[in-house]
Order: sequence, then C-alpha cells, then structure tokens
Amino acid sequence: MFKKISLITNSDSENIAETLRFLIKFLQDREIEIELDECCGRLLGDTGLPVVPPEQLGATSDLAIAIGGDGTMLKAAHLVCGHDIPLLGINRGRLGFLADIPADSVEQHLEEILKGNYSEDPRFLLHSEVHRNNELVHVRNAFNDVIVQKWNVARLIEMDTYVDDIFVHRQRSDGMIVSSPTGSTAYALSGGGPILYPTLDALVLVPICPHSLTNRPIVINGNSKVDIILGPSEDNYARLTCDGDITMELQAGDRVHVEKKNKYIRLIHPAGHDHFSILRAKLRWG
Amino acid sequence: MFKKISLITNSDSENIAETLRFLIKFLQDREIEIELDECCGRLLGDTGLPVVPPEQLGATSDLAIAIGGDGTMLKAAHLVCGHDIPLLGINRGRLGFLADIPADSVEQHLEEILKGNYSEDPRFLLHSEVHRNNELVHVRNAFNDVIVQKWNVARLIEMDTYVDDIFVHRQRSDGMIVSSPTGSTAYALSGGGPILYPTLDALVLVPICPHSLTNRPIVINGNSKVDIILGPSEDNYARLTCDGDITMELQAGDRVHVEKKNKYIRLIHPAGHDHFSILRAKLRWG
Amino acid sequence: MFKKISLITNSDSENIAETLRFLIKFLQDREIEIELDECCGRLLGDTGLPVVPPEQLGATSDLAIAIGGDGTMLKAAHLVCGHDIPLLGINRGRLGFLADIPADSVEQHLEEILKGNYSEDPRFLLHSEVHRNNELVHVRNAFNDVIVQKWNVARLIEMDTYVDDIFVHRQRSDGMIVSSPTGSTAYALSGGGPILYPTLDALVLVPICPHSLTNRPIVINGNSKVDIILGPSEDNYARLTCDGDITMELQAGDRVHVEKKNKYIRLIHPAGHDHFSILRAKLRWG
Amino acid sequence: MFKKISLITNSDSENIAETLRFLIKFLQDREIEIELDECCGRLLGDTGLPVVPPEQLGATSDLAIAIGGDGTMLKAAHLVCGHDIPLLGINRGRLGFLADIPADSVEQHLEEILKGNYSEDPRFLLHSEVHRNNELVHVRNAFNDVIVQKWNVARLIEMDTYVDDIFVHRQRSDGMIVSSPTGSTAYALSGGGPILYPTLDALVLVPICPHSLTNRPIVINGNSKVDIILGPSEDNYARLTCDGDITMELQAGDRVHVEKKNKYIRLIHPAGHDHFSILRAKLRWG
Repeated sequence: MFKKISLITNSDSENIAETLRFLIKFLQDREIEIELDECCGRLLGDTGLPVVPPEQLGATSDLAIAIGGDGTMLKAAHLVCGHDIPLLGINRGRLGFLADIPADSVEQHLEEILKGNYSEDPRFLLHSEVHRNNELVHVRNAFNDVIVQKWNVARLIEMDTYVDDIFVHRQRSDGMIVSSPTGSTAYALSGGGPILYPTLDALVLVPICPHSLTNRPIVINGNSKVDIILGPSEDNYARLTCDGDITMELQAGDRVHVEKKNKYIRLIHPAGHDHFSILRAKLRWG
Repeated sequence: MFKKISLITNSDSENIAETLRFLIKFLQDREIEIELDECCGRLLGDTGLPVVPPEQLGATSDLAIAIGGDGTMLKAAHLVCGHDIPLLGINRGRLGFLADIPADSVEQHLEEILKGNYSEDPRFLLHSEVHRNNELVHVRNAFNDVIVQKWNVARLIEMDTYVDDIFVHRQRSDGMIVSSPTGSTAYALSGGGPILYPTLDALVLVPICPHSLTNRPIVINGNSKVDIILGPSEDNYARLTCDGDITMELQAGDRVHVEKKNKYIRLIHPAGHDHFSILRAKLRWG
Repeated sequence: MFKKISLITNSDSENIAETLRFLIKFLQDREIEIELDECCGRLLGDTGLPVVPPEQLGATSDLAIAIGGDGTMLKAAHLVCGHDIPLLGINRGRLGFLADIPADSVEQHLEEILKGNYSEDPRFLLHSEVHRNNELVHVRNAFNDVIVQKWNVARLIEMDTYVDDIFVHRQRSDGMIVSSPTGSTAYALSGGGPILYPTLDALVLVPICPHSLTNRPIVINGNSKVDIILGPSEDNYARLTCDGDITMELQAGDRVHVEKKNKYIRLIHPAGHDHFSILRAKLRWG
Repeated sequence: MFKKISLITNSDSENIAETLRFLIKFLQDREIEIELDECCGRLLGDTGLPVVPPEQLGATSDLAIAIGGDGTMLKAAHLVCGHDIPLLGINRGRLGFLADIPADSVEQHLEEILKGNYSEDPRFLLHSEVHRNNELVHVRNAFNDVIVQKWNVARLIEMDTYVDDIFVHRQRSDGMIVSSPTGSTAYALSGGGPILYPTLDALVLVPICPHSLTNRPIVINGNSKVDIILGPSEDNYARLTCDGDITMELQAGDRVHVEKKNKYIRLIHPAGHDHFSILRAKLRWG
C-alpha cells in the first residue's frame, strides 16, 4: 500500500526528534522505505536515510507524514502539492485543525492507516497572482489564505474588490483575507469570518478591521475569481501574505488575483474521523 | 412570452394600489391576461379581474409579480413555489434585497422584461420538519430561514445540532438560525452571520447570542441535512419560525430537521442585474 | 466580627446540602449564630436553626453566604440588598464570576475571612421602572441587567432609546440590554457587549441582533438615566426581564426607565482576590 | 471674549483655502486678532497675518479653530494641548465626530459662539511611555488611541497586558488598542470595540484580531494604568502608534505604559450640541 513515505517537520525540538525516531523505527520494522526532508535531516543528524531537497521531496513516495502542528502541515502541503500523494499529520503538543493524530497514539493509528483503514479528505489549494501594469509579476499557492494587508502605514488602506469581474466594493480597512474552507479556522476566524465546512466548494472574503461596520464577511462560490486592486495612494503601504509568509510588497494599482487551484491536498485521517469533533476540541464548544 | 401574469401584494396602502393600477393598465394595453391574489383584490375593489385563492394562484400563469418589499416577496415565493413560474419584485419605498425594480421605473424595466431581456436567478427553498417522539408532526417551507428560538423563558435554551447525522455541538443560546443564501442578508445578518452569494450551494448555521463566545456561524454544503434537538428541559420554551412566521411551539426532545428543498424560486431581474450593487446600496458600502 | 450569618441557596441538590452541613458545623464550632433562608430550610430539613422568610432574611445578620453558582448569588443579592451586609459566594461545580470560593477550600478561605482578611467589592444595583400612560406601573431592582426583549412575535421590535432625556436612536432589534458592570459578563457578553471592569461607574447598552449593523454597544456614565420607549405597534410584543426573570409584559408606548440604584451589594472575596484571574479562568484566556 | 484666534489646518486643498479666507474676513470684520499655523500659511500665501511655528502656536490665543476633518482636529489637539484654550472644528466635506460645524454654516454658528453661546466638552488625552530595559525611552501624547500593532511579520504577535499592575492576559493577536472615549469611534470601533460616551471616565482595551475568540474589549476605569509587555520573540515585530502616527518600532520585552494624562482638550460646540445626533449621522442609525 504505502511502500515509501516522506517525513516532514519544521521544528528543531527534541520532542519532535523523539517522535521521528519512534516513527522511523516503526516504519522500518514494517519494511517501508523512508525519505526525510531537510529539516528532519538536520534535526536527526546521521540516520542513514536519504535527505531529499524540497523540489524532489515526495516525488517517488506514496505518503507524506508531517510531524509538528498546523504550521508544519502548511509547510508539508506546499512541499507535496506537486505530487499526488496523501498527507498525514502527527501532532506534538496541542491538537491541530489539520494535524490530528496525537503523538502518543501514533502506533495504534498508524497501524490502521497502513492497513488502509483511513478516510481521505481532499482540500483545495488557492492560486494567487500579482499583476502590475498589466504584467504578471508574481505567482504563489496558498493552502489557508491569501491576504492583502496594510504595511508600513498606520492608517487604513483602500482597495477595490471584484468577484468574477463584478465590482463588489471599495473598502478602507487593515486588509482583506481570501480564505479557503481550510483557512476559515485560521486567521480568517480571528478576523471575524465564519467557519466553512472543509469540503464546501467556496471561498470567503473577510475584511480586516473595515472602516465601514457593514463590511461583513462574504462567502462566494469556489470557482469564483477574486481580484483586489490597491488604491492609488497605497504605494508600498500593503503587502501580500500567503499562508502567513510575507510574499511581496505591493504597489499602488497592483491587482491581486485569487482563485481555486486545480489541485487538492489529500489529507488523510484515521477511519471515523469527524471534523466537528476537532472543532469542538479546538474551540472548546460545550 | 408572458401571456398571463399573477399580481401579488401583502399591503393595504394607497401607494401600492396606485402602482397596481398602473401595472394593470400597462399589462392590459399589451393584452396580457391578469389574475390577482386576494390581497390585491381587497385593496383594489372591483376591477373585473379574477381574484384567485392562494391554492390556485399562479397555476395557469407564466409570471408572478409581487408589489411591495422583501416581505411581499417572501409571501409571493410561498404562493408560487408549487408552480414553475418566475417571480419579479417591484419595490415601493426602500430598495429591497429581493424586490429590486423601483416603482418609479416599472414601465421601462417591464418593457424590457416582457421582450425577454432579463436574467433568471434561481434560489432554493428550505424544507423543514418537526419530529416528536419519532413522529413527523409538522412540515413547512422557508425561503429565508428556519429558526429555533427561545420562547416564554428568559434564560438561554439548550439544543444539540447535527449535520448529516454527525454531532456538531450542544449549545446554550437564544436560538439557532438555519439560513439559505437568500436569508443570509435577513435575520441571519443581524445575528452575526456572513453574507452568502445567492447562488452558493450552501446553508449557514447562525447561533443567536450563544453563551459560548466561540460558537460562530458555520457554513455547510447545500445538500447537508441539519437536525436540531431541543434539550430535555425545554418544554414549551422554544418555537419554530419559518421566514418570520411563528410556525409552532416546540417541546423538549423535539427534532427540527432542515434541508434544501428540491425546488427553486425563479427570481427574475432586469438584464445586467448585479447582486453586489444591491448589497452596496442596502448596506451602504463605500 | 461576624456574629451572625445568613445562609442562602436556590438549589435542591445533595451536593449543596453537604456543603451547607459542613458550613453549619464550621460556623457553630466558632460560636457564630446562623439563620437559613427558606430554600436552605427545605433542603436540610430539621436542623434546629431558624428558617427566615425573605423579607426578614439578613436583617440582623453581619454577613450572608450564598452556596451555589452565579444564579444563587443573584438570588442572594436580591434578598440582602435591603440590609447593609456583605455577601460571600461559595461555588459548587464550575467557578462563577460572582461565587468565587470553591466548595473544596471553604475551610481555609473562611478561616481567613472570619479573621477579617478579605477584600470588599461593592457592586451597584440597577433600578428599573415601567411607565404606562404617564403612570408608574412597575418597579424592580436588578443586579446584572434590565432587558426589553421581543416576545410573542417573530419579527424585530421597534424602540426609541434616550439617555438623560437626549434621543439616542430608533432601533429595530430583538431587544435591548441595559447592563451593570456586573452584568457585562452575563447575557450582555453573549449579545456582543464589552467586558466592564466591576468597579467602573458605567452602564452599557447592548442591542440584541439589531437590524442596523452599526448599532453597537454604547457605554455611558453610571449616573445616566436610560429610557426605552416601545414603538406604537409593539402591543404585547415585548417584555421586561430583570436578572433573567420575566418581570412583565409590555405594551406599545410603555417607557422603561433604568438607572443606577443608590445601593451597593458588598461582595466579599478572599484577600488578594483578582477579577482578571476570574476572567481568565471563565473565558479560558491564554 | 475671544480676542485672538489661531487657525489650523493640515490640508492643501483649495476648498479649505476658501473657507479659511472667508473665516479670516469674518474675524477681521469683528476686529479679532488672528494667527496661522504653518500649514495655513503655506496654503494661503502672503496674507499679512503672522504664521506661527508649532511650539508657539496658541500660546497667546483665546481659541483655536481647526478647518478640515477629524484628522485636522487630531493635529490641532496635539498643537494646542500645552495651552489652556478651547478648540473648535469646522468641517469641509463629510461631517466628523470631532469637527462638527459644517463649512456652509460657519457664519451663523460662529456668530453665536463669539457671543458666548456654546458648550464646552472636555476630552482627556492619553499619555504613553515606552520602557526598554527599565529605562524610559519614549514619551508621547494621544487624543484617540495608543496602539501596539504587529509589524514586519505575518504571524500574530504575543503580548502580556497588565492593568494597575494586575496581570490581565497573555494574548496572541495583531495588536492591542488602548483608546480614550474620544477614540472609541475611530479605529477601536473598526476593531470591534464599543462606543464610549465622550465624558465617560474610562479607557477601553480592544484586541485586534485576537487568536482567542473570547478576548473581548475590556472597559476599565479612567485612572487605570495600562502596561503592555511585548513577548520575548517579538524583536522588531511590533510598533507603537499614537493617533495614527507610527511612533516607534518596539523590541522584545518593551513595556508600553498608557494612562490618562492630566490634561483635557476643551472642545467647543454650538449651544445645544448633542453627541448622539452626531453618532446617528455618522453611523447612519435609523
């Protein structure tokens, strides 16, 4: 089933190293081939296992396992999105929205997953472009969200938003979040956005601290094309952020285009996985 | 094209009567057959036109026109939902989310619409059921929203919510709104819900004044089945409301089931209609 | 110091009875006189201790102790507000905003408090009146909040609000909360209100699901006089609630007047008490 | 009464120049002495009137008049706060929260004000300090708000808040606003804060996009001392903003201290001024 597995982390903690070592032994006992991303390589030192650079990681694997938290899952999603392999998250510390196998029950869960007892949960990626003077100057994927956010200025910034080339509004705010359902429980939630069920085919636009109190989050069809055009006075006063990485500084008139990418991250979960139970645990409902 | 048209109102104001008289003359000049709902009949007195009871209204028509505001559109949607005819709204007073032809430009817009220059905007209905002791005791449609709301008690009420038979949460609140995209700009918006684009295939669950501050609106797939089960102490402390009508009083343990109905209201708009321009006007964006 | 203490509950649970019995023994060992409210009397059966009706309870005591949760504290506040005695809350179950001594450390905390090691935390009461046709028809105190809330109708209700006889706004909503700082962490918080520090001399007006999205909570001076006048169509469509008790049904044109009462509830806490630590625990900050 | 008046603007628009010229003639006709701030000087060119540098502006005047919008009022408040003179705002364009005399009725309103028919509306200033390694490194006033805001980083920042040396919470967010009542209708409102009545003796703490959904705005006594300490990883990831000016970049461990300044800006308004009517107009209530 899973003959070769890529291991990914973004941490340098001894806790993670311990889980990794356990995992490696567990997989080697079952004669599964293993490759490590560079961060795992640095963390573990010499293991005899191949350490693979980002561009090749996962290319010949059947599964990727990320060990860490939701941030690690974001990194892993970017690494494996070019390859059609599933992604599993093992969590050290607090339960994550994405990394939902607790480190202390890896053995039991992994045993089942290796037998094929798991559910697959496809999550779409976002594709973002920046157009400057009618030229495409930047392309980037995001798993959670694409954000146009004020930068280097204390006042609100102005931007125009279009959906499928229809004008939505001119808004003064701290910025605008374009979020996938996956991202709806990340920064978009802090900004006042709704929770989107992960398989919903939709995007949500969440204004950040908008000047107009009636500028509320808007949920649009998943195949919509969103364009956000920076106002004429916003030279170097805004930047683009994808999944929490500062991606580039924006200039007045820049057009940020966001749409669903025709690519899915194939998250896998233990059989019987239930997204609402994760929401209850993370948001402490009840 | 439209050979017979049903006229609908829910008002007794002279303003509406004036628009109705204008409309009747306009349609008669074009030799279009007209029928009136009972409220139009009462308002206009003897016109020689047939006044048709609710159960037959629209059965032989090609189009229904509602004259009033969004409340009139709700009434009209309930009246015509059994017949596969489009529905147009003419607005007296403030612009509506649904009734978007201003009374003072009826002539110009209607001329175009009668020529076939219009766009159709299908909006799904909600279907709601109440189950008591495993028996179906109530069925009702809604266009905007189905609401379980506290009643006759000052404290919060307790209810359990399920989506597709998966437990979502136990919640103490003033109630829960299950809204269609159409209803997302009505009561759900006052309750803190997001705006859903009208053609999005989704429902939104909006808790009303929830005790837990992390109980946020949840947007789910349009084909989801929602069940809300009243807590064991809530005998006669909650009621069901569909589109703002008090529908029935609920008892402890009652299960309110909501899903998308396999029926659409075919709203029609002038060609070039644009939902965001209505949002801008109604919510005074910018 | 405290020669006579009144014990108050509103519960019939065996847990509470147990704490009460422990408390009675503890106080009798220290030769402190005890009186019981009627609910304690019913719960404990014959104890030989005087059971005192509401109107006399606390009249000759030096301290009242409420055993239960925040609801018990509300009851106790109403019972003792006519007498100038401090009030202490002992909590069974979850920590409360008001009842902050856990039942399992009663002995240790009470020992210190009886020695005089405690801090006093005065909380003002609200005074509410209903005026109908220029006649005063109702008077009532509240510790948390006075609420005008829709009732018996599914649509929003309309009301005009005045502060110190200055018109604030005409609002359509599910109702309006006038809350003391003490009540700001109760229902007002679910309605979207801010947290007011307990000793702040202020009231907060929190609209419940207002139709206008810009109708936000307003914090006003503690000595302000608030008047809420029900719209002309709201006959029997709203009611007054004080501290979660349905107080009376309101008619169109009724004027609900709320102001700070010239009376304080003297909450007492163990020395070193810290309101923010209670907020952190109750709201799970951090 | 007002023998000498300082005129202040921060605009270079011809509209403002026109209002200034009208105002100068109006005052000269009444033999009132005039001085101009540098921006008025640049805008009007040679007028024969003294142009006074910031540090001396208002020192010998009896009144300051700001011509512009709320931003101009902020500038004027900073200019005149060292002198005990009242401040009047004349508004070009949209009505302001602070500048409430419309330019087209200057004559009528000013006539009355010069006669002494006006009301005075004292608004307190905030005082902010930055302490680094136990050393005071920065002092600054604010009229609206003091803000610690993330900067140069896409993730949330961590900070600890204290009120009167009592720990409030550790928060991860985009920042924290400490606002005066005056500032409660500015940025704090966009951040989800309540409206504070201008004369309320209170501060409000508004978290910006907090990670914890229960981190709500907190209203505290006006004489409270607020300290916000940046987390240990926030080196150069946050900055201090006072009234919308970027004031300084902050380092890990920096302590930002905010308290009410013992200084009031004496806003004046036409007699019969009513703050709620301004709220209604600005927030389009009703």
